[in-house]
Amino acid sequence: MNPPMRITVLAGGVGGARFLKGLRKIQDVEISVVVNNADDISMYGVRICPDLDSIIYNLAGVSDLVRGWGRADETWQIQAELARYTATETWFNLGDKDFATHIHRSFALNQGSMLHEVVAQQCATWGIAQNILPATNDQIETQVILKEPFEGRSSIHFQEWWVRHRAKLAATAFEISGIEEARPAPGVIEAITDCDIVIFAPSNPIVSIGSILQIPGVREAVVHTDATVVGISPIIGSSPLLGMADVCMSVLGLSTSSVSVAKVYGSRGNNGLLDGWLIADSDSNRLAEVADLGLLTAAVPLLMSDDNATLAMAEAAIGLVMKEAAI
Amino acid sequence: MNPPMRITVLAGGVGGARFLKGLRKIQDVEISVVVNNADDISMYGVRICPDLDSIIYNLAGVSDLVRGWGRADETWQIQAELARYTATETWFNLGDKDFATHIHRSFALNQGSMLHEVVAQQCATWGIAQNILPATNDQIETQVILKEPFEGRSSIHFQEWWVRHRAKLAATAFEISGIEEARPAPGVIEAITDCDIVIFAPSNPIVSIGSILQIPGVREAVVHTDATVVGISPIIGSSPLLGMADVCMSVLGLSTSSVSVAKVYGSRGNNGLLDGWLIADSDSNRLAEVADLGLLTAAVPLLMSDDNATLAMAEAAIGLVMKEAAI
Repeated sequence: MNPPMRITVLAGGVGGARFLKGLRKIQDVEISVVVNNADDISMYGVRICPDLDSIIYNLAGVSDLVRGWGRADETWQIQAELARYTATETWFNLGDKDFATHIHRSFALNQGSMLHEVVAQQCATWGIAQNILPATNDQIETQVILKEPFEGRSSIHFQEWWVRHRAKLAATAFEISGIEEARPAPGVIEAITDCDIVIFAPSNPIVSIGSILQIPGVREAVVHTDATVVGISPIIGSSPLLGMADVCMSVLGLSTSSVSVAKVYGSRGNNGLLDGWLIADSDSNRLAEVADLGLLTAAVPLLMSDDNATLAMAEAAIGLVMKEAAI
Repeated sequence: MNPPMRITVLAGGVGGARFLKGLRKIQDVEISVVVNNADDISMYGVRICPDLDSIIYNLAGVSDLVRGWGRADETWQIQAELARYTATETWFNLGDKDFATHIHRSFALNQGSMLHEVVAQQCATWGIAQNILPATNDQIETQVILKEPFEGRSSIHFQEWWVRHRAKLAATAFEISGIEEARPAPGVIEAITDCDIVIFAPSNPIVSIGSILQIPGVREAVVHTDATVVGISPIIGSSPLLGMADVCMSVLGLSTSSVSVAKVYGSRGNNGLLDGWLIADSDSNRLAEVADLGLLTAAVPLLMSDDNATLAMAEAAIGLVMKEAAI
């Protein structure tokens, strides 16, 4: 019997969560997940980690599948009361159960716990078998540089841009505050280095996977790992599977296509990161372009319409670069 | 027309709140309330002010009248989630709406607001016309000195003793941490000095009114005010109107009766605090004892069974010491 295949996934929130629910159906694998936390934000004195919570709630089976974020069977008392006290409408919806997560996390952090310790405790609480890691324990926050000042500010927090303004304020760049001093959380570099395969989940290549890669040491670990590295396109045709990755691509002057994202990551043979790149079956006419970048590639259904479809997609991604793998 | 009578009440939580709902029905008065905050406590990183919140919720008309504390139409999601994360049962019940108050307050305090500013904003939010003041902006906490150590601790926070142990752990004293350095909140001394009458609400004489009086400067202000000072017995026969004042009296070796509480406060003619002391009609056989202490006194119904009964009681307290008042 072979030892279990060790898979390390770099992931953002909702897309990453959905991918992991399929991936974990593969037998005999050990899964580590490095989760973006550059879009974390503090509100009302609590620290909110949207991508980590999306992944944890989904793997715990307690996420709201219709709304796409937050907890199922949620109530909204706290938010209504806070709006009353502050006389402002909140643009970031926080349910009561979700708020409890933030209160617990913030209390632990203020008591001196590291974020990765809080995450490990959350995962233990929910019985999550996968090794979930925040990309960093340091407080980093993506700022959106605006073309025109908004309310006197030349840049705003990514969440405000994304959630409050639905990414409609013209932007010119993303900058992550605190990124230079940030260090990968304990276990992150080892997870990338000591595994058989690194997978870039079909998450936002700029503000999710891209933010993880900007943490000093992470890109280098991916470049130098002995593992094979495969990515799954978050773009089908010219539209993101989920979210608004297309808008983030546009801000940077990039076209929105699976080939364009592949170029952002680049091939390892060409100073890039990827060995393989999985694109949508409907994009099969672009397979040659991907191959020309020096990447192994295939075109398969990417819609993640249910966990079994996602499982098949995950198997295809692994099969692309691990022909011999017993999956 | 006379100017409005200025009344300043020293008050604890539930008993104080109920008293104020009657008192405020008097026409043409300006009411200030100095509220005990020595039984405040921090839990899960938020600052909880039980007496202030009881008074504010009651005056706002949003308190739970059956349970006696907290908000009406309350839900309990946060508490259940926190119990899940911490794997401990909570002994201090915090509803979701109530939690929002604590989150809002804690956030404001951490941003640099003073407690009296937060209280003023809460009162503005709820349209409360009375001038509600925390006794102090400083963090003071009543500690219960135990006869025998509990879980290795020789003293515990008053709330843990009161709520978790229902005051059943044998105690020898109460000590207020931080009391020496505490200062009255802005407006407290002025409210006591610049008024026509000071009323001690029928609140716990040891851990509510007593704690307010221990803040340096407050007792002196009551002693020296030109206002008349009248108290309402929180004890009927040998039982407290509300709460467990009898237990606190016993800890200090005091018997539980309206006369005993009157002696704790003392008469102004005899280095004490009171000009008058209102006792229950059922305690009328003790009127002579109260009078012998040098106090104006009367025996009237003290049950505060509804706001009109409480109004009559408040009018009797005022009438005791302000014969000429146009009430």
